Amino acid sequence: MKRLLLSHAAIAPTVSVPTQNERGDTVETHIPGEHPLTIYLNKRELVTLMTLGSAPEALVLGYLRNQRLVSSMDEVESIQVDWETNAAAVKTVVPVKRMQERTAHRIVTTGCGQGTLFGGLMDDLDTVSLDPNMKITQLALYSIVEMIRTYPSIYRQAGSVHGCALFEVTTEAASLKMFFEDVGRHNAVDSIAGRMWLDDVQGRDKVFYTTGRLTSEMVIKAAQMGLAVLISRSGVTQMGYQVANRVGITLLGRCTGRHFLLYTGKERFVANALPPAITPRESPSRTTSDA
Amino acid sequence: MKRLLLSHAAIAPTVSVPTQNERGDTVETHIPGEHPLTIYLNKRELVTLMTLGSAPEALVLGYLRNQRLVSSMDEVESIQVDWETNAAAVKTVVPVKRMQERTAHRIVTTGCGQGTLFGGLMDDLDTVSLDPNMKITQLALYSIVEMIRTYPSIYRQAGSVHGCALFEVTTEAASLKMFFEDVGRHNAVDSIAGRMWLDDVQGRDKVFYTTGRLTSEMVIKAAQMGLAVLISRSGVTQMGYQVANRVGITLLGRCTGRHFLLYTGKERFVANALPPAITPRESPSRTTSDA
Repeated sequence: MKRLLLSHAAIAPTVSVPTQNERGDTVETHIPGEHPLTIYLNKRELVTLMTLGSAPEALVLGYLRNQRLVSSMDEVESIQVDWETNAAAVKTVVPVKRMQERTAHRIVTTGCGQGTLFGGLMDDLDTVSLDPNMKITQLALYSIVEMIRTYPSIYRQAGSVHGCALFEVTTEAASLKMFFEDVGRHNAVDSIAGRMWLDDVQGRDKVFYTTGRLTSEMVIKAAQMGLAVLISRSGVTQMGYQVANRVGITLLGRCTGRHFLLYTGKERFVANALPPAITPRESPSRTTSDA
Repeated sequence: MKRLLLSHAAIAPTVSVPTQNERGDTVETHIPGEHPLTIYLNKRELVTLMTLGSAPEALVLGYLRNQRLVSSMDEVESIQVDWETNAAAVKTVVPVKRMQERTAHRIVTTGCGQGTLFGGLMDDLDTVSLDPNMKITQLALYSIVEMIRTYPSIYRQAGSVHGCALFEVTTEAASLKMFFEDVGRHNAVDSIAGRMWLDDVQGRDKVFYTTGRLTSEMVIKAAQMGLAVLISRSGVTQMGYQVANRVGITLLGRCTGRHFLLYTGKERFVANALPPAITPRESPSRTTSDA
């Protein structure tokens, strides 16, 4: 196997700006970076992503993977990111077939959506095969929620980003394998997809966590990566719910503290923890949301 | 002026699904709808939006406005939304010029980004003119934050949506003129833009509120609508900050309770309230965010 040639062009994820608070005091505040990065696929302009820029090569590879423009890492010869020109030059081993046709349909997905999910992805859903034996226990879920809560993230410093993570689980606990943040959760999940290829990590035995909502787009991408268990601090949309039901994915939403809601795929969930003494209220609060 | 012909195809914004909580109890939970809506501009497929579907005609009109594919409502003859086929058929009075060229560049914006902001929007920023006399007082800001907090929104029922609102302000208070929610804040802001045209509402003397982050895309769209004051419960990204600075927009973020941060355009802000006794902590909390 020929090794993929990569730049290493990560940039600082936050900048500090002076702001003024309700008392009139000047407060230095961290805000996340947001940079345009235009992907050129074999010298042809494909798309411009707005990104934090902390993992641009994994992001670009994952974008191509999740858009199904390449079907394995071996097809990619090089990814060169240059922030002078805000460009990511991708070269494939052989030309990408039917590129015009495959990028003709634009789907602007929900919320923190991908923006462009090129058409046809839904059609491929029936070919997705997940591990029927993949399970998640209540203790492993709590372990994941606690790890995310205490992770030294960009979010803690600057807010206004979304995180996606990949975990390995046992019946008792979980261990963090990957964590990416970006100004859009679509970029964060694409970065996970890219890194999975780069590190030869399979999705079938992993659990996926996102700080963002589980919309159709997120569920479709996770399904393509073979992920059978998706966890979110946030909620689920109708189409995310429908796709998960159809493919057999377990969706756990509203996961904070010891609270959660199991939306779909109940057969993968194993209750092995005592019920909590006090249940936090279920309705979301407006006060501290960040999106 | 010829009256625009519109369908009225709003659909119910939420559905109820059975979920299971941490105690193993079954809980009927509201989740927001998420439906594909493909826009056909003069019979040519333009884009598919994923939407809640509660204001599809305003959304489609605002999308065309914010993408600058039409420059006034008079150019549009009809918008017909049909949920049987998930299609919005738009007819313009005269053909849209250079449509191929104008939709060739895709920018996938951040976070809850628009997805496709067709290229060239940044280039037009220098033509934006805002009202230099537009101001926002601290009391009006607090009035807005309180009104949003108590508004009977879809968010309160189902979470997982973003809201955008338009306010009129005095030195003492504010009044709500429009409020739209959707599965993406980009759709919510586009719906505002569409409704503004339909009701002949100008942006120059209005204040814009969003539950989502103030990214470049949100700031660019607001600038195009003539809005000089933008308020968010959430934060600001670097490019949102830069665009606001360049155009002269006032950004107020992290607005919860009596707390806020004034990022840019300090000259438009009038402190006319006593400082609060206790300042809420400034770092965002992970626990109840929804995106």
